[in-house]
Amino acid sequence: MTDEAMVRELGRLLDPERVLGGAAAQRAYDCDAYTVDRSKPTAIVLPESTDEVAAIIRWCNENRIPFTGRGAGTGLSGGALPALGGVVISTKKLTKILEIDIENRCLKAQAGIANKRLSDAVREQGLHFAPDPSSQTVSTIGGNIAENAGGPHTLKYGVTAQHILGLTLVDPQGEILQFGGKIPGAPGFDFVSLIVGSEGTLGLVTEAWVRLTPLPNAVETALVSFPTVRDATQTVADIIAAGVIPAALELMDRGIMVALEAAFGLKYPDSAVALLLIECDGVGERACDRVRMEINQVGEICKANCAIDITIAQDEAERQKLWLARKKGVGAMGRLAPSIVTHDGVIPRSKLPEMLDFVYEVAAKHNVKVANLFHAGDGNLHPCFYFDDRDPNQVEAVVTAGEEIVRKCIELGGSISGEHGIGVEKADLMPFMFTPDDLRLQAMAKEIFSDGSLCNPCKVLPNQKSCVEHKRRWRGVAW
Amino acid sequence: MTDEAMVRELGRLLDPERVLGGAAAQRAYDCDAYTVDRSKPTAIVLPESTDEVAAIIRWCNENRIPFTGRGAGTGLSGGALPALGGVVISTKKLTKILEIDIENRCLKAQAGIANKRLSDAVREQGLHFAPDPSSQTVSTIGGNIAENAGGPHTLKYGVTAQHILGLTLVDPQGEILQFGGKIPGAPGFDFVSLIVGSEGTLGLVTEAWVRLTPLPNAVETALVSFPTVRDATQTVADIIAAGVIPAALELMDRGIMVALEAAFGLKYPDSAVALLLIECDGVGERACDRVRMEINQVGEICKANCAIDITIAQDEAERQKLWLARKKGVGAMGRLAPSIVTHDGVIPRSKLPEMLDFVYEVAAKHNVKVANLFHAGDGNLHPCFYFDDRDPNQVEAVVTAGEEIVRKCIELGGSISGEHGIGVEKADLMPFMFTPDDLRLQAMAKEIFSDGSLCNPCKVLPNQKSCVEHKRRWRGVAW
Repeated sequence: MTDEAMVRELGRLLDPERVLGGAAAQRAYDCDAYTVDRSKPTAIVLPESTDEVAAIIRWCNENRIPFTGRGAGTGLSGGALPALGGVVISTKKLTKILEIDIENRCLKAQAGIANKRLSDAVREQGLHFAPDPSSQTVSTIGGNIAENAGGPHTLKYGVTAQHILGLTLVDPQGEILQFGGKIPGAPGFDFVSLIVGSEGTLGLVTEAWVRLTPLPNAVETALVSFPTVRDATQTVADIIAAGVIPAALELMDRGIMVALEAAFGLKYPDSAVALLLIECDGVGERACDRVRMEINQVGEICKANCAIDITIAQDEAERQKLWLARKKGVGAMGRLAPSIVTHDGVIPRSKLPEMLDFVYEVAAKHNVKVANLFHAGDGNLHPCFYFDDRDPNQVEAVVTAGEEIVRKCIELGGSISGEHGIGVEKADLMPFMFTPDDLRLQAMAKEIFSDGSLCNPCKVLPNQKSCVEHKRRWRGVAW
Repeated sequence: MTDEAMVRELGRLLDPERVLGGAAAQRAYDCDAYTVDRSKPTAIVLPESTDEVAAIIRWCNENRIPFTGRGAGTGLSGGALPALGGVVISTKKLTKILEIDIENRCLKAQAGIANKRLSDAVREQGLHFAPDPSSQTVSTIGGNIAENAGGPHTLKYGVTAQHILGLTLVDPQGEILQFGGKIPGAPGFDFVSLIVGSEGTLGLVTEAWVRLTPLPNAVETALVSFPTVRDATQTVADIIAAGVIPAALELMDRGIMVALEAAFGLKYPDSAVALLLIECDGVGERACDRVRMEINQVGEICKANCAIDITIAQDEAERQKLWLARKKGVGAMGRLAPSIVTHDGVIPRSKLPEMLDFVYEVAAKHNVKVANLFHAGDGNLHPCFYFDDRDPNQVEAVVTAGEEIVRKCIELGGSISGEHGIGVEKADLMPFMFTPDDLRLQAMAKEIFSDGSLCNPCKVLPNQKSCVEHKRRWRGVAW
């Protein structure tokens, strides 16, 4: 079928104005935020309903054309890349909130709505949707479900999976299926958990029931500097051991401080080698006293671990200023070098000091610049290498260093991905972590949903037929 | 194969002393705590390792003999019933703790260990395994995983699924598979969540990594009486709305109070029609102040909802006394009538008043005695009918009333099971809640694990071949 014919035929299934083709559109949809891997789709469709999505997928099946769902395209592992071309099904027009149930604290929305809009819709009622990936102003709930997104507040509130009660899925054959619903824990097998985090490979989620969480009415935020990274990681361990669960517990190292100073003129103590951003929050009438008590306790723990400087925000403006260290960190690095690769690995929390020492050693060995800002409370590392991707030697060094870090994560009992997904980026690394038997079983999951190998091909599982071309990895990601 | 031959052959796979046969053994293993449905196994095996379990299951496959896993046999829906006879694989000898990792707050144990022993093993380190089904002194972690068990503290701490990090599964063909591990959120599809709650139909779990949770060092417990059930359910809603998440929030109605008075001489105010047992807890240095604050806030909410009497335990002895109302409730009813049926349904929390009114109406209409004690905070109802099962009219009335309650749960957007599982008890009720397409999909999950229809047959899914005999339901359960 010619490109034009495909666009024309799709235009019979939905309003032709919502079918995009041509070079400009194809280029706009050839990658997500994992920009090193690109592949053009033939057509992009913008359905407005579950029925339209089902019709498109049935049409793709009849014509043996691959299809890939896409939310806002902010994914960091290439999950929305149309690896074998075909049709990109964008959820851009699926942005309705369908039902709000304040009393039972849940909400049903279409998959293309931006994460933050869910919280906006129920803020006046004192509720919010807790998962908060850094991309939350644009990234969609459908994308968050596909990647099982986390965020700075994951430590206390959990990842996306813990906040999804039910789903409408259009399966790879175009059949519309419902899982779960308003109340948690339906009997039978737990398909909701299987679909969340499956990176769009089991079909396209078009609607979801999400859990709403009380909005904290008391928040205390501290930024604390330490003379060594080990002091900071020991503080993390001690805070958790003391029974405090901060809403956020983020670590930034010297590399980030240097970048922040260069880019935004932010100043930190000269002797500071690590920063911890610590936020405690609480809900209810007397939350203020309770949260104040917690942040004071956190402060004492920091002091006991040689903290140089402890700043506690006195108002919202100060709080936003402290958060800059976390929120602007990656952006700041962007000004130091043309390219950044942000890794995403997990290790048991107790291995943080050992792992960070290893990251610095590997970077030094390969002469690569590295900085770290990450969810320390979860043991979810994000070492960022910054480099010039026009220099093949630097690229090679970054690739090699990255692979060593991934292997070390696994060696320490960890995982090759915390919250960015596998996508195309890490599909080839899955055998580091899983045996061939494990992977065969993983592949079986797709058969439940009658996958005809057209639905988001070349993702998650390695060695898929016809995906040989998608083997590049550890290349620079532009932010 | 004769019964004797089967016992003899199994005796070649493991120490013959750990293979039981004969009439007495067969009768001891012919049901779990759902005693109305009985079916004798031919042999019972007591393996001591995952490898022995795998050898037994492979042997069963070679000889086309059904097999059913069994923990302590405390299940309430017949999950461990050997519905088609064959081999019962008991986890009684799989009781080792294999690894304790205090720093990362997790523990690996064999599946046959009693739930409470996990907590006992780490109490000195200030940790515990949070899920606490009423049966926890005997019920096993394997059984808890199979049924995704809850308990009074589910409201704050979540069901079993939220506390399982990894599993060793012997699949229905006898292959040994590993899922997850010490750290949460492995990439790829989430099979751990699929296996937890699958009621032993996807294979036999032999080992698990479980999450350990800090033991609360501050606990405050209140027992509060109300003049109407609606006042009590409104209090539940108001407590949650105020942002307090009690560790337990249990409701007992007049029927339970009458039974407790008759059986144990416990006294409650004459005008009391409902009791709430409310427990708040907390962890850490200053938890005492925080939890005291919470229970006082709870007390104020109770007063605002016409509470007659608020008793707050002043010490551990008083606390245990207040808990009697919850813990002895079902036992007390056992003295009022020869039989009890305890239902297990879930509704959105906001529908509690309406649902309880309906339960009383239905009981009155059918002239059946009913009492309610349940996890109000979760909307997880446990209406208990007590009756004489020697009178067929009473049995018929109880069956009819039960079915009306289940239908009402679904009508109100709820579920036919909260925490007791489907088993054989409710397999026939699954079509009330799921379409044929949904059920077909559910059945597909078994195919991932190469089920040859020998692994725990006749459970969860209705209309399984050769399970026609297992159609009785809503019969008296002896406690």
